[in-house]
Amino acid sequence: MEFKAVVVDVDGTITFADRRLDCRAVEALRSLHVPVVIATGNVLCVARTVAKLLGTGGIVIAENGGVVEYGRVESDTSHMKECEEAFELLKRHFVLERLDPENRITEIGLRRNFDVERAKELLMEFPGIEIVDTGFAVHIKSRRINKGTGLKRVAELMGLDARDFVAIGDSPNDIEMLKASGFGVAVGNAHPELKRVARMVTMGEYGAGVAEAVGELRERGEIR
Amino acid sequence: MEFKAVVVDVDGTITFADRRLDCRAVEALRSLHVPVVIATGNVLCVARTVAKLLGTGGIVIAENGGVVEYGRVESDTSHMKECEEAFELLKRHFVLERLDPENRITEIGLRRNFDVERAKELLMEFPGIEIVDTGFAVHIKSRRINKGTGLKRVAELMGLDARDFVAIGDSPNDIEMLKASGFGVAVGNAHPELKRVARMVTMGEYGAGVAEAVGELRERGEIR
Repeated sequence: MEFKAVVVDVDGTITFADRRLDCRAVEALRSLHVPVVIATGNVLCVARTVAKLLGTGGIVIAENGGVVEYGRVESDTSHMKECEEAFELLKRHFVLERLDPENRITEIGLRRNFDVERAKELLMEFPGIEIVDTGFAVHIKSRRINKGTGLKRVAELMGLDARDFVAIGDSPNDIEMLKASGFGVAVGNAHPELKRVARMVTMGEYGAGVAEAVGELRERGEIR
Repeated sequence: MEFKAVVVDVDGTITFADRRLDCRAVEALRSLHVPVVIATGNVLCVARTVAKLLGTGGIVIAENGGVVEYGRVESDTSHMKECEEAFELLKRHFVLERLDPENRITEIGLRRNFDVERAKELLMEFPGIEIVDTGFAVHIKSRRINKGTGLKRVAELMGLDARDFVAIGDSPNDIEMLKASGFGVAVGNAHPELKRVARMVTMGEYGAGVAEAVGELRERGEIR
């Protein structure tokens, strides 16, 4: 099968663990002759900047799927009230630092300085809400929104199917995206849970893993 | 003289003309053992993202000096009312597209799709306001704020003098920054007006120019 597009996570996939961009990923993605979509848990402004710096064009998935941009911006803020209520509850138990409060509109991002497992227990009473630790930030988000739903929407807008995509990631918040895609890649440094759902686990870590996946798929004639 | 820091423009200096990041600049800046400050006409969120991806740390100058971040954010919004009035006047003559209206707080950014020279004439009645075309966007901004004033403020916050900095840029909005610095570098693709105020004009363009300047200053023992 020849895949028609690539969707790729940012932190820990095209960046090193300290969030510095890995130029090996940049070169690999630029070598592709199919559209590349950026998918991140970060806010739209960050996603757009990454896309611009990579030169991948303006198709992005931000806020773990809550925000999608293809020509125009679509955002699903319908779960924000529940997220805020969950946040209020957690605030009673932890000192929390909210990330990008002005720019994050569909979920709540928190610094990773509290007991996430305990927080998950506390949020049992919010069935629609989940708490996800990407290794870079903790997200209080709707269970109905994720990078997989974001990928499906972007694919639809592009006139493609999510199965036409190769998806590359490193973290548990990439699981639904890899599952929705036609071919899931976990970079070498990926979380074990993501490696379990991936069709390919690269030897290389970070950008080297991205380059390895692109090279191997090209060799097989599965991507241009 | 040994310089203690570097301040570098983004678009057209560490990126190509199409705004794609030039990895030659990334590697050169990462090779430095002194602080690197990002200085851009773009908004804070973009400046922060670039700094994070480069791994230069969190010292940034955004909105052409209107916003400065070093630990905390400082912004000078005192000229925004005049900028808005100037914008209203221009709107009577041109169809204008405002950039980042939610995020740009100290000046007004516009798409480059109108007659800037004619706009400059129209704004004669606003003595405190200038209109600057960076080649990437047009800025309606205070004459009292520029990347030079931003550099002086950042230097002060860092316990340095602007003269301790090497400044690298490509565009007319970098003129004051190069002048305020101890050593101004214009990359090979720079605007002739910037080349006139630079101490060094590189042969290389974009990131190759940045790498050339860093290499040459290091060879002379003027930067670590």
